[in-house]
Amino acid sequence: MADQPSDPMDAAFAEARAAALRGEVPIGAVVVDSKTGAQVAMDGNRIEQLNDPTAHAEILVLRHAAETLQSPRLADYDLYVTLEPCPMCAQAISFARIRRLYFAAYDPKGGGVDHGPRLYNQSSCHHRPEVIGGIREQEAALMLREFFKDRR
Amino acid sequence: MADQPSDPMDAAFAEARAAALRGEVPIGAVVVDSKTGAQVAMDGNRIEQLNDPTAHAEILVLRHAAETLQSPRLADYDLYVTLEPCPMCAQAISFARIRRLYFAAYDPKGGGVDHGPRLYNQSSCHHRPEVIGGIREQEAALMLREFFKDRR
Repeated sequence: MADQPSDPMDAAFAEARAAALRGEVPIGAVVVDSKTGAQVAMDGNRIEQLNDPTAHAEILVLRHAAETLQSPRLADYDLYVTLEPCPMCAQAISFARIRRLYFAAYDPKGGGVDHGPRLYNQSSCHHRPEVIGGIREQEAALMLREFFKDRR
Repeated sequence: MADQPSDPMDAAFAEARAAALRGEVPIGAVVVDSKTGAQVAMDGNRIEQLNDPTAHAEILVLRHAAETLQSPRLADYDLYVTLEPCPMCAQAISFARIRRLYFAAYDPKGGGVDHGPRLYNQSSCHHRPEVIGGIREQEAALMLREFFKDRR
């Protein structure tokens, strides 16, 4: 039996914690090969570090994975992220043809999947990933609350 | 009197035509310093070239401008683009705090500003750029139609 890869949501949480240590909002994401379980890209937010308004964890891992795999389309890949993606990231996930999106905390204020514009419900959305939200929701929400509490 | 910078929408159209020559959907964008008129970043789509599902013209110029200016927030800057931005780009433009968005053709199928999710009308949108759409609309729409006709 091959080595079991570690749990991808664990890896996403580790990236989120690492982001907090850099002074970034603690959100982490991982792209996983749905056939092998291999984690092909993982990262956390780097907006301030990179001076990049688009450097959300999801955008970074989609870009890394697509570059590694030499394809802008990642149809056999899943994405794990510690927070419901915003509209920018939700649309990028659709463009990348991600098969399945797993996320932890819901984001009623800034989310674009189950809140706000609910992008995958728009008739203009050509690719809708399967969505599984609310995994380890409380743990992820607590991490975000602690981060913002410490900075006030 | 200082040199007048060339028209930024002209520059965006030139970037769109250059994108078509690379086999990319012909969309171009330019970021302009609203105080000086200086064009600080310009580019066209590079999705296929870079293997990057997020490499829309708008995302590329926001990233270039923010890197050049060493800030993820571009509050004194305007963005010119040849097509109504999609939801991904519309949200990125909001995150970057762009002052004013000028676009050429409307995009009823894929646009996210005046169509689909109309992101700037969402209550969750924290920064709404001023929007001026429909500049040289027919010219931009024709360029896109010709591109897709040639590829069929």
